[in-house]
Parts: sequence; structure tokens; C-alpha cells
Amino acid sequence: MERGELSLLREIRDRAGRAPRGISLRLGIGDDCALLAPRPGEELAITTDLSIAGRHFRLDWHQPESVGHRTLARGLSDLAAMGARPVAAFLSLGLPRSLTMPAGRRSGARSWVQRFLDGLLTLAAIHKTTLAGGDLSESPLAVADIVLVGAVPRGRAVLRSGAHPGDLLYVTGALGGAAAGLARLAELAGPGESKRPPRIPKNLEATLAPHLYPQPRIAQGLWLPRRGLASAALDLSDGLSTDLAHLCEESGVAAEIEAALLPIHSSATLAQALHGGEDYELLFTAPTAARVPRSVAGVKITRIGRIVKLRRGKPAMTLITPQGAQPLEARGWEHFSC
Amino acid sequence: MERGELSLLREIRDRAGRAPRGISLRLGIGDDCALLAPRPGEELAITTDLSIAGRHFRLDWHQPESVGHRTLARGLSDLAAMGARPVAAFLSLGLPRSLTMPAGRRSGARSWVQRFLDGLLTLAAIHKTTLAGGDLSESPLAVADIVLVGAVPRGRAVLRSGAHPGDLLYVTGALGGAAAGLARLAELAGPGESKRPPRIPKNLEATLAPHLYPQPRIAQGLWLPRRGLASAALDLSDGLSTDLAHLCEESGVAAEIEAALLPIHSSATLAQALHGGEDYELLFTAPTAARVPRSVAGVKITRIGRIVKLRRGKPAMTLITPQGAQPLEARGWEHFSC
Repeated sequence: MERGELSLLREIRDRAGRAPRGISLRLGIGDDCALLAPRPGEELAITTDLSIAGRHFRLDWHQPESVGHRTLARGLSDLAAMGARPVAAFLSLGLPRSLTMPAGRRSGARSWVQRFLDGLLTLAAIHKTTLAGGDLSESPLAVADIVLVGAVPRGRAVLRSGAHPGDLLYVTGALGGAAAGLARLAELAGPGESKRPPRIPKNLEATLAPHLYPQPRIAQGLWLPRRGLASAALDLSDGLSTDLAHLCEESGVAAEIEAALLPIHSSATLAQALHGGEDYELLFTAPTAARVPRSVAGVKITRIGRIVKLRRGKPAMTLITPQGAQPLEARGWEHFSC
Repeated sequence: MERGELSLLREIRDRAGRAPRGISLRLGIGDDCALLAPRPGEELAITTDLSIAGRHFRLDWHQPESVGHRTLARGLSDLAAMGARPVAAFLSLGLPRSLTMPAGRRSGARSWVQRFLDGLLTLAAIHKTTLAGGDLSESPLAVADIVLVGAVPRGRAVLRSGAHPGDLLYVTGALGGAAAGLARLAELAGPGESKRPPRIPKNLEATLAPHLYPQPRIAQGLWLPRRGLASAALDLSDGLSTDLAHLCEESGVAAEIEAALLPIHSSATLAQALHGGEDYELLFTAPTAARVPRSVAGVKITRIGRIVKLRRGKPAMTLITPQGAQPLEARGWEHFSC
């Protein structure tokens, strides 16, 4: 490890701080591994998400705080989708040297990576997630792999494979906001590559927030297994049409979506709500008899369709509109292209 | 996720297979998270290691099988250093599209990533490690982040911070072999960039093996806490001088190394043994009264020096040679430069 990496490691170690009370982390950054002792009766949920410059974020579009926030949000959202309580995060960072240097010469100038950590650690604190370890390396391309570890009562995790014909289909929050926000950000940034991300005018902050600072639905996820009513769940990272296809495939079922029921974000189109990715809302199924509330922890829950039997020769997903039923194809958002 | 990623994900899922008996993995690839249930009385050790093309490996120097092997070996070695039994691995892969395409037009031609998985999964099978999840993305630069999860009896993990003055210092195996192998590989590859890795002549395979196919010391690591005799341990990834500095810093002690005792690899120099990285041998300390065997599971254990009190104004590490004592500086191997 080089000198620069060592000093960055020390900074991360200091800022990651001690594990808060009630968290089962026994040993964090500074040894070969972190040690985690789950509580009795719990099992651990583990997920990894790779974020790559030019594909999941752009240095000339996204402020570093947003990149840090989004990096962690992706992992937290996977935990939410299983009904797991976040415990610890691990971060593997590969960065060009320039991103570890102070930006500008004025005293107190901060580096890209320091601001990236601001965004990541602010969201981590909200969800009581300790940064427990990771790896650092110089890299010609900025890459960040986030590992999230959560805890869930043994046997109670909500899987993708539990949906049954007859179950109703629900989503949290609104759909398409992240895709609409990304489209607006692209307009602001303009064509070609620029040196730094565009300034966001005050009146556009709310429109861009679902893309720049998506909120993982941890509280809503924790509620799913607690009430024992969700039969299956996943998070909407690739877009409703693509993620619903995963749920149908894993459960061996088909689904019908009613276009009129979709909670489309105020700034989004129907297409963005159906196919736009990165909303990080939860998609879940529950038996018809289950009493699903209208909101959980301030976030709306909307019924958008139902699970039906998969029939040979019939599409696995159908969209019902006033004009009739039509096959729904998985056309998930491809983020950026390199 | 794109079509190519989906089919690669399916292949990995098929090849990763089911968790073998006795492993506590409840759910692997295919859901939002993997679920792990540690056995009663165990805690989990978790580590991540980022490998980046041009820094940790070179596409024009290393066969893909070697890159896959080395990617996993780095993580397994961290588990060995804690005395943990491997349970599961997670792999986040970012790859240029070309590396996912069959190389050449003949039927049965395999892609770089398939051969990478050959190397990774062969080593995983040897150490009963299940590939339990991960992430895939297209990337202009090849990057692989490996996450290893191991299990260790609660409170028995061997930390870096447990060394005391008077303890003796030991290493497994031989030192400098990986650095010597890398130097030989660089000669074979020649200057400049070539299109594919050099063919390794039969008579050089043994010389290059410590670099291309390092063996993580899992069996030796498991032995450390079982006998309760190692007071501290870590794995030699950055080179003896750099890794020993970490151990001294974490334990608040100093160390003396005897040059004449070092188990220098037959193809290596003293400098390579002291500063060459990536040997992935274990460095550990034990009280003088401990009965340390000469070998464990066929790998030699060698006493190389001792832990002493850290004194203000004195170097933390000393090398004792026939010419006398001299300060030992941390000059760990920097792998490649981009």
C-alpha cells in the first residue's frame, strides 16, 4: 500500500468511528477482516453492488456527495428488499490519484474522495450502518464496490421466490422520479464532457432529488417480515418491468399491472415509471387477505396489480390500460453507456 | 442489467453450484442478498480485496485462470490470517465487453471471463468456499472485487494487535518467491504491451507458481487459534517489512528480524524476501513457551525473530545481520504502476 492510500485509510478509519451500541460489530477497519457476531436467532444478509464511473455515475454530472450517497443507497436498498436491518458496510474504492488530492489551492480545500465520504457516511449514519472495512487502490478509473451486511430474524427474510397466483402486487413511494431526474440532469449538463458537474438551481432540487439522493426504504422493508404478510419482495433498481420479470421468474408466476394504478412521480412519464431504473422503491406481493396499510413510516404503499398463473405461450407480464391488455416487456434502464 | 450480463450471471449461478453440506449458506446467487446463518458459538470474519487491471494484474502478462486464482487467493489469505474457516465468497466484476466474448471463432472457444472463473472456482472448491453472490457490470477497465466470509469460534480470532514483547516471530513457507516469479514473468513478457500473456516454458512453471498461483494458508491459519498459541497474525500481502510494520503498529511493539533465519525462496533475493509482496504466507507471533511445530499440513514454520519493547527514538523494526543490527524500513512491493 502506498503512502497516499495509508493516509486516506487513516482518515476513513477515523471518520467511520466506533460501532454504535446494539450493533454486533466486534472489530472494524484495521485488521485483516472485520468480525461480526449476529444476535441469537438472527441470520445475516449480504449483498454487493459495483459502481463504475461512466456507467453508474459521471464525474462531470454528479457531485461527489451524490456519488457517495448513491453508492451506499444501492446496497441498503438490497437489504430493505429482504426485510433486513443494516449492520455494516464495506467499501472497496479504486480512484485516480487526482480524486484524492484537495480540489484547488485554498486552505481547507477538500478532495473528491472526502466529499464522496461525506455523502456516503451521512446516509450510513441515518441508517445506523457502520463502515467496517474495505480496500483502497489507485485506479485509472473511479470504481466503488459496496458490500452491505444486514441482520434478519432466522427464516423470516422476504425472498423473490415466494409470490403465488392470487397475491396482490404493491410498490412503495412513486415510480419514474429517478429516470426523470436523470433526464433533467443530462439537460443541465449539456452535450459533451465538462470539467465539473453542473450547478443545480434551487427550483430543480426537488426534481433531481430522486436521482441524486434516492432514499432506500429500510423502514418499509423492516415492516414486511415483521407483519409476516409479504410473500415476495425486491427493490426497483433496474426498473419496474425488468425487476418484476425477475420476481416472476424466481416465483414461477405471471403478473398483471394496471397502468391506471401506477403511482407515477409528478415529474415522470408512464414509460419512465415502467422502465426507469434506480427508483429504489420496494416491489412486493401479499395475499389478498393481508391488510396492507396505505403508508408505512410516511411512505405511500400502492397496489398496482396482481400475480396470476404462468401459462405456456402467454406473456409473463401484462399491462392493462383503458385500451385493453398488452404484453409488458422488460425494458429496464441501462443507466449510462461507456 | 443487459442481456449479456444476464447470461453471464446465469452461467456463474450454474457453475457456483449448491452450498456443500456443513456450510451455513442459506441462499445464494439470484436474490437481493445472500443469507448466512453462522453456527452457534461462531462469529463471521469479512474482508474485501479489489483487483484492478494494470495494477494488480495485467491482461498481457497474466492468463485469465491466474487472475481468477489470485483474486480469490487475496481474500482467502485474509481469512487465514484471522484463523477463520472460509464459508462464502462474493464477486463484483466490471469487465470490457470483449472479455465476455469467446476468444476466437473456433467452436468451443471460451471467453476471458470463463477462464477467469475456472481459476477462481478451482481454488474455491479446494477451500470449500461457495460463490454466494456478487455483481456484474460492463466497464472500460477490468476490475474484480472479492468479498470473503469466514467463520471463527467466538472470541478466538487471531488479531494483529495481540503481540507482546518477548513473543517470537514466525512465518509459514518461503519468502520472496512471488516477487521473484513476477520479475521472471516481466522478463518473459518483454517491454511494451503485447496482445496476450507469454507462454510459460515447462522449466519455469515452478519459478512462476508462487506469483501466478499463490496458495493461501487456510490450513495453517485454522491451526493458529485451535492451539491457542498465536498471540497475533497477519498475511504477507504487501511484503514482510510493510506487513510487520502494521503488526508492530497495531500491537504497540517493536520487532527484530534475523536475516540468517529468513526462509528465502530458492529463486529469490534477500531484498525480495524482505520487501516483495504477494507471498500470502502467514506472519504470526507466539509466546516463547509455546510449542510451535516445524510444519503444519506440509508447510514449514520458521522462527525469524522476536518482538521487543517499542522505545522512543528507536526504530520499530531492526534487521540483524552478521555485520550487525540495522533499522529495517517498510518498503513494501508496489505491484504495478498504471
